[in-house]
Amino acid sequence: MKVSELGEFGLIELFAGIVIRSRGEALLVDIGDDAAAWRTDASIQLATCDALIQDVHFTLGTTTWRELGWKALAVNLSDIAAMGGLPQYALVSLGLPGDTEVEHMVELYEGMVELARLFDVAIAGGDVVGSPLVLLSVTVLGTASNQILTRAAAASGDHIAVTGYLGASAAGLVMLKRGLQLDKETAALLREAHLKPYPRVIEGQILACHGVKATIDLSDGLVSDLAKVCKASGVGARLRVGEIPIHPMVSAAFREDCLDLALSGGEVYELLFTGRIEVIDKIKGLMPCPVTVIGEMVSDEPGRVRLFDEQGGEVRLRRGGWEHFAPGSNNELR
Amino acid sequence: MKVSELGEFGLIELFAGIVIRSRGEALLVDIGDDAAAWRTDASIQLATCDALIQDVHFTLGTTTWRELGWKALAVNLSDIAAMGGLPQYALVSLGLPGDTEVEHMVELYEGMVELARLFDVAIAGGDVVGSPLVLLSVTVLGTASNQILTRAAAASGDHIAVTGYLGASAAGLVMLKRGLQLDKETAALLREAHLKPYPRVIEGQILACHGVKATIDLSDGLVSDLAKVCKASGVGARLRVGEIPIHPMVSAAFREDCLDLALSGGEVYELLFTGRIEVIDKIKGLMPCPVTVIGEMVSDEPGRVRLFDEQGGEVRLRRGGWEHFAPGSNNELR
Repeated sequence: MKVSELGEFGLIELFAGIVIRSRGEALLVDIGDDAAAWRTDASIQLATCDALIQDVHFTLGTTTWRELGWKALAVNLSDIAAMGGLPQYALVSLGLPGDTEVEHMVELYEGMVELARLFDVAIAGGDVVGSPLVLLSVTVLGTASNQILTRAAAASGDHIAVTGYLGASAAGLVMLKRGLQLDKETAALLREAHLKPYPRVIEGQILACHGVKATIDLSDGLVSDLAKVCKASGVGARLRVGEIPIHPMVSAAFREDCLDLALSGGEVYELLFTGRIEVIDKIKGLMPCPVTVIGEMVSDEPGRVRLFDEQGGEVRLRRGGWEHFAPGSNNELR
Repeated sequence: MKVSELGEFGLIELFAGIVIRSRGEALLVDIGDDAAAWRTDASIQLATCDALIQDVHFTLGTTTWRELGWKALAVNLSDIAAMGGLPQYALVSLGLPGDTEVEHMVELYEGMVELARLFDVAIAGGDVVGSPLVLLSVTVLGTASNQILTRAAAASGDHIAVTGYLGASAAGLVMLKRGLQLDKETAALLREAHLKPYPRVIEGQILACHGVKATIDLSDGLVSDLAKVCKASGVGARLRVGEIPIHPMVSAAFREDCLDLALSGGEVYELLFTGRIEVIDKIKGLMPCPVTVIGEMVSDEPGRVRLFDEQGGEVRLRRGGWEHFAPGSNNELR
């Protein structure tokens, strides 16, 4: 069997079955969540890594080196945020063709440092090797002193909420790939949503401090990531598509496709979380960003996400979330 | 300027100049040593990452998946060992072509787990993405409760010692690349030295516990890595080439080239350390492996490594150590 047939998530399950859980009770969360977590003497250590590969995750034709540096760090900070942690240290493993311009490397690092500075993250080390294509694998270490937020803690009856707006990252990818000419303001917003995502670190702290237990970032897309929460928690989900906070500029520029972009588009670094409605209502007032309730967790059909329109009719999802190795996937919107 | 002109070590210095040292006194060692180190409430945290890229660091024609898994973890455990630390957790970032066989992924992980088990390391998480070639970037976290061993702590008058034997890894690479037919015992030893290196974790602990301060592993080769110790410590080094512990099977199989293999061959996971002769003599009796004194650190010519034969005549090094992006370098013995 080829890995393309098993798929990314099948492969992750396979690896989880092979690795030993040798450190016993210290290891709180291993393969399969946004980040690994283990208990140290004083607190909880979080660790995550994500790789970006040229012409799989980015093309240098549409991404600047500075944006690439920012994004490579941002996707990892988002994973720490989604566990309710504070990022502290980053290691950068970099593969480069020998004819790469040194000034581009300066831009790459400046992009990382620009973001690192915002969250007091130290770029503490890494590795640089020759490679036929550009690749960046960033590891981020963080700590959590409070509750860890996992994808396995959702309960039937919980409401489902998201931070911010959806659809803009996928819309940005479509714009860049197709070379769409949009008005300046829209183009800038979509580009930033796709290439300079802002990790919800502060928001993750607020969730962890105020009783939320189940959180995930939407790096693989709303429906795909919510399905992971459902599977890990043994519950089902019902989404009201009319309440999904699609960014108004996305609705305006992609009238027909905007719901698909919001439901299926990956590389979204908003947080999805679940909790009792009184918890979510309290959090709404504390958050520096919009928080929108978009559905509920239910006890029937564990693992399944169902979508409903404003009249209560069921909506079929046209496109799946982003999965590596899925047939035809190459980070294109499918 | 291209990165091939600046070179790997120039690039690392460039990055070290850009990143902010934002975490102040907590960060003990950043870019440029075997591993990063920072102080936590209870101990010192160590973190390192190393990437292996298909057809740069390995070819699937000569390396089994199981060996690849072992080696990808081993090179990182060696970095933690060279800081005097105990490895605890690993994250694995994996890039794979979609047509990779799933059974090969099982072998890869089994190779990692085989080594992880020996040192009680938990494979706690990671990332798996599609990629046109196979790449593995492993991050290892560890702790040190005693003295950290850095490359900046060597002093004039220190003796220079190495663990184990040298030359076998580079000889193994030559054997595999050229398809040399050697006797069965030699072939097995050289293959293992190159593809299944055994990280000196226990030896690193002994060094840290018994007063050694400057240690490095020889992943870039004896002369290249010793030069890094010299540069970081502001001292020079004199090596007596006649005392370098070349593995007897390497001497027998590569009579003419064995000294070059031992001096310049990279991917050696022995530890080089420096210390007062009485410290080294005491350590010799404690180590589970041979320890050989091969030279001294001197105050003149900081940063320079000079080689001398048994008659005291100076020996010129024919070949440099392993550096990514060096002209013509592709992990071939140069």
